Amino acid sequence: MSEHTVKAFDTDIGQLRGLIAEMGGLAEVAIADAIDALVRHDTEKARLVVANDARLDALEAEVDRFAIRIIALRAPMADDLRDVIAALKISGVIERIGDYAKNIAKRVSEMERIKKFEPLTLIPAMAEIAQSMVRDVLNAYGSRDSILAVQVIERDEKVDNFYNSIFRNLVAHMMENPSTISSAAQLLFVARNLERIGDHATNVAEMVYFAATGLYLSEREQAEKGESAG
Amino acid sequence: MSEHTVKAFDTDIGQLRGLIAEMGGLAEVAIADAIDALVRHDTEKARLVVANDARLDALEAEVDRFAIRIIALRAPMADDLRDVIAALKISGVIERIGDYAKNIAKRVSEMERIKKFEPLTLIPAMAEIAQSMVRDVLNAYGSRDSILAVQVIERDEKVDNFYNSIFRNLVAHMMENPSTISSAAQLLFVARNLERIGDHATNVAEMVYFAATGLYLSEREQAEKGESAG
Repeated sequence: MSEHTVKAFDTDIGQLRGLIAEMGGLAEVAIADAIDALVRHDTEKARLVVANDARLDALEAEVDRFAIRIIALRAPMADDLRDVIAALKISGVIERIGDYAKNIAKRVSEMERIKKFEPLTLIPAMAEIAQSMVRDVLNAYGSRDSILAVQVIERDEKVDNFYNSIFRNLVAHMMENPSTISSAAQLLFVARNLERIGDHATNVAEMVYFAATGLYLSEREQAEKGESAG
Repeated sequence: MSEHTVKAFDTDIGQLRGLIAEMGGLAEVAIADAIDALVRHDTEKARLVVANDARLDALEAEVDRFAIRIIALRAPMADDLRDVIAALKISGVIERIGDYAKNIAKRVSEMERIKKFEPLTLIPAMAEIAQSMVRDVLNAYGSRDSILAVQVIERDEKVDNFYNSIFRNLVAHMMENPSTISSAAQLLFVARNLERIGDHATNVAEMVYFAATGLYLSEREQAEKGESAG
């Protein structure tokens, strides 16, 4: 590419990364607000989380159109092309992370206000880790930091452990209090959504790793990634 | 592009579409086998579904590398470029559909053999619709059929309705049989995974629609798509 084209490409990719950083910020806030709405049974705040998700959908479409325009206009090669492709894939995953937060928020109105019981104290702690994974993987993406990306991938195990103890915890609670089964089942899905957010942050971390190094993580890690999909 | 380059691109994109058709076929079989293993409590068949998922992960990586090579070598423009981008995104979603099937298979060993009760008869019917969505959206992709893509999107409502009745059904069953709560909770997730497979087939249908028409579906449909993410 000519000197001029290179400059133009750098400006474009910077703008593309800016859009993705914006998406990441919105997704992070959506997770925090959804959990806060859940814990305080704040149906109005939950309604806002659901409404705000449309912004993430719109940003993803904007990233798609912009990335295609960059490829068409600048014909980037090698690493530059890989950057644009990574942006396309990452924006798709962040949009899904937003969907999980939205889904948590939608459950607030489907639940009765539950008096404090252990899962409701574990879930915010689990959410904080999932949120930190989203924040850190976006930072790893912004700074092309493959080491931070690997750290995010490793942190996913904590989220999985939280999920397993919350699951056991909720099942025990359901057996003792059959009347709360319907609401407790909603919390099962909340924990599951948080666990999936961790998986998706892990997927992004793998893409960041690929974009930064040009290498895929080992098949073993690929497999772990899929472990708890669903 | 020169006559020669056009020919070369058509061969490449055909090969790319072939890889995606192969992924779709594997995902469809994975769903059918996972549900069969669940209903017959066949832990060995479930184990195979889990093991076979690695093939989908490998195919997705192959599609990524091949798509990047096509863009770099052929510098496709406009519709051709949109085709390659769509292939990249669709392969990612099919890989996730495979993860959901794998997740259903992994639950088989976590459950005790449950004697027939209604959800176990509803789940295969729900799975058949989800499977048909995966099959049809791949056909829509192969034949650039935007009308079939819209039909797939409309069918997602049936899957959502199945999910809601299975959820109510399972909660009622849990209340009456607290001893089966742990296994019934696994079925809640199975139903949820099938519902998510329907959502992902819908996502692919939206991409097929975009690739075929160059248009995004309306914000309203975009919103419906996100409705039951999680």
